[in-house]
Amino acid sequence: MEIYLIRHGIAEEQREDVKDEERKLTKEGKQKTEKVAQRLAELDLKFDFILTSPLVRAYQTAEILIKTGLGDKLEESTHLAPNGDISAWIADWLEPNTQTSKISPETKLALVGHEPDLGNWAELLVWGEVKGNIVLKKAGTIGIKVPEQATPLGNSQMFLLTPPKYLL
Amino acid sequence: MEIYLIRHGIAEEQREDVKDEERKLTKEGKQKTEKVAQRLAELDLKFDFILTSPLVRAYQTAEILIKTGLGDKLEESTHLAPNGDISAWIADWLEPNTQTSKISPETKLALVGHEPDLGNWAELLVWGEVKGNIVLKKAGTIGIKVPEQATPLGNSQMFLLTPPKYLL
Repeated sequence: MEIYLIRHGIAEEQREDVKDEERKLTKEGKQKTEKVAQRLAELDLKFDFILTSPLVRAYQTAEILIKTGLGDKLEESTHLAPNGDISAWIADWLEPNTQTSKISPETKLALVGHEPDLGNWAELLVWGEVKGNIVLKKAGTIGIKVPEQATPLGNSQMFLLTPPKYLL
Repeated sequence: MEIYLIRHGIAEEQREDVKDEERKLTKEGKQKTEKVAQRLAELDLKFDFILTSPLVRAYQTAEILIKTGLGDKLEESTHLAPNGDISAWIADWLEPNTQTSKISPETKLALVGHEPDLGNWAELLVWGEVKGNIVLKKAGTIGIKVPEQATPLGNSQMFLLTPPKYLL
């Protein structure tokens, strides 16, 4: 199974009169995210499920992935909100007897969320601990292959880490 | 300082009558490596030094980087041959009083070599230990930012990991 950790695009700056969870993508953020999504679609990437943080800037990013044809099943996951717990997400989505009908070795999942969480999740999946040494830019993507048998934490492989500029 | 770990392109299969270190890039390997190099050049990447394993398939890859305008200083490093020692390379290139006139915070180095060595070097730089969980395809690139002060092992940051297909 492959997991693509995708950070939301460029969003409005923090302001006193806008709650953090309601900050929207800027025009530039939308355009850049659309270009990234188009490029991924050209590479024949197709997600079986697109899971997103419920925060507006992430949800809008996920909607762009759907609109571009990268998938058609969108679900919110509170685990993908800032400070979300990867173990809780794994229990929901990857452990036997939960969602097993949804997941096969060929499944591709997109997880749309935030930094530093997504970089930390990548480190936990690939190395089993967080050093905070992965740099994931806005609208950037991390690609991770999860093993079929072993526990994903510390046993997954990273095959992709790219900011938008290498894709555009 | 940024280090780009670049794996050699597709090479001839192993044969009894050709020494491993003399295996050349195939026609497809040259073409794909040229395209990757052109794409990196379009992104305004320019290396201050291109260091390469002395093995023919790596040296030919480094020559393609030079020919594409990605740099003009090419040096062989035996540390980049298979099973090379990153600590010896760091002592040669990054420690104070060695090559200091060559290295500044803005320096960009390309290191052309082999798997699994380059993936292992990336893990050592970023996490300080090897798990063998980075997948680096032929003609693929890993981008790493080395800290100005701290020792590079375990303190560097990864900002790029891409197989050729995302660049072409």
